[in-house]
Amino acid sequence: MSKLNQSTSSSPAPSSDQPDQGARPVAFQGEPGAFSEDAARQLLGPDISTLPCRSFEDVFEAVVARNADYAVTPIENSLAGSVHKNYDLLLEHDLTIVSETSLRIVHNLIAPAGVRFEDVRKVYSHPVALAQCERFLRSHSGLEASAVYDTAGSVKMVVEGGRRDEAGIAGASAAATYGAQVLIEGIEDNSENYTRFLLLTRHELENKRSIGSKPAEKSARKTSVVFRIGNKPGALFRALGVFALRDIDLLKIESRPIEGRPWEYSFYLDLSGDAKEASVERALGHLGEMTESLKVLGSYGAG
Amino acid sequence: MSKLNQSTSSSPAPSSDQPDQGARPVAFQGEPGAFSEDAARQLLGPDISTLPCRSFEDVFEAVVARNADYAVTPIENSLAGSVHKNYDLLLEHDLTIVSETSLRIVHNLIAPAGVRFEDVRKVYSHPVALAQCERFLRSHSGLEASAVYDTAGSVKMVVEGGRRDEAGIAGASAAATYGAQVLIEGIEDNSENYTRFLLLTRHELENKRSIGSKPAEKSARKTSVVFRIGNKPGALFRALGVFALRDIDLLKIESRPIEGRPWEYSFYLDLSGDAKEASVERALGHLGEMTESLKVLGSYGAG
Repeated sequence: MSKLNQSTSSSPAPSSDQPDQGARPVAFQGEPGAFSEDAARQLLGPDISTLPCRSFEDVFEAVVARNADYAVTPIENSLAGSVHKNYDLLLEHDLTIVSETSLRIVHNLIAPAGVRFEDVRKVYSHPVALAQCERFLRSHSGLEASAVYDTAGSVKMVVEGGRRDEAGIAGASAAATYGAQVLIEGIEDNSENYTRFLLLTRHELENKRSIGSKPAEKSARKTSVVFRIGNKPGALFRALGVFALRDIDLLKIESRPIEGRPWEYSFYLDLSGDAKEASVERALGHLGEMTESLKVLGSYGAG
Repeated sequence: MSKLNQSTSSSPAPSSDQPDQGARPVAFQGEPGAFSEDAARQLLGPDISTLPCRSFEDVFEAVVARNADYAVTPIENSLAGSVHKNYDLLLEHDLTIVSETSLRIVHNLIAPAGVRFEDVRKVYSHPVALAQCERFLRSHSGLEASAVYDTAGSVKMVVEGGRRDEAGIAGASAAATYGAQVLIEGIEDNSENYTRFLLLTRHELENKRSIGSKPAEKSARKTSVVFRIGNKPGALFRALGVFALRDIDLLKIESRPIEGRPWEYSFYLDLSGDAKEASVERALGHLGEMTESLKVLGSYGAG
């Protein structure tokens, strides 16, 4: 197993700490074989241990509570858009983004060993996966689609259920994980289907990674921030101006509601450059002068 | 019934047209008793006829196909955020926004007549409604929550199912619609829970409304647009500049992925003023010079 956490601090470990013999695992949402687990291996290597979590909240909490050292979580799909829940969780938790990667999403029809396509009547998957395979499902009118909570979980369910007329839709890793077979590969409607995943960790581990750091160095750096501005005319334009004035490119803007303040928003920006570069540092200082709150979510290599 | 469509054109009606004896109904997503139906009555009066639709796509299609003259559809919740599917549908369909309204969302535990709270074991509702009642559900550990496709639909289901240990979570109108009873009122975690709904119609009906126009006149006007810009540094900043330069306030910005062009976006803006005002007209002309595409979704009274 790779050694994720190189900390050799001699101070007494917190009670929830395990001795650093190995490494704490990488948390992800879903069942083993999920796309997020594929992304974790793409980011950190094939030998990591992983911690499947029920919800995105549980993923963030696992790293905060030191049950995991890293979290890998989807932030955006090129067809479905941003995973807004994870934007909210980035604001609520004190973790930092240290890398990102992008995964081509290939959906496969997967059934227990020995089941033939002609036998399949019921197909299960996550609602987003079902929506992304709509054309395939419509063109096979004998198939009845039902939503479940997870792609890999749908394969787990049909394998464990033992029925011979059911299949799941998931990535190829799910078939391998549960000893199931891919009946039909690549049934997604649109092949320009990518999901971008973030690698998160606690601040004290930010500079201690032995793996996953090389890919980050190869590429240009980007910085993610979230801020709130008062509800004044022109406020958003002025906020974006601190970057335009310094020729810092904006890569993405996202808005999320502020709880208890209807029709007011937190704005999330991805911008080019590292927060330690002089121009970005000055731009963020300038932004801080005009915002109610400003949080840097991390600087990392663009995947 | 109110007369929605005052068209008295003497040209031959399209084959899908009904004679204008009454009015075509108002389409909304969900079952009768849904919050969208409440919003439709708030916008157009209590006597309208409504057309329940299975999906948001069906709502837009109903108006395009002239099975309905209006659509009322949620665009944003103050806690859950934007209803992104409806942003996509606004771009894909050639309808226009003619009004908006905001509804306070009160979730109620609703059961068939005669069922007591102590009897209830299973609770059904839309996933967003269940999430917004999480504290209530957690504090009553005897209740098992299950997701269904619709709030009002959950009440319809438990009433039609005839079981005495099930309840739904929905608005008060759903209880009235299905002859069910509100067991506990206002079980949502956060009372700052509002949904903003848009009123949409076909362009030829834009200026023909006999009802629903008064509320729009009372308030300030706003305009919604959607545009695409090339992936050039500073492009979004310059695009927003056309409004800032003319002291036109931006009320909301939203981004959505462009299918087939990973990590490129369509931007949706709500801005203050009517597209017919000189300064807004000039700003939109200016924006058109620098965008790949620009579509005005409508000018309407802010609700």
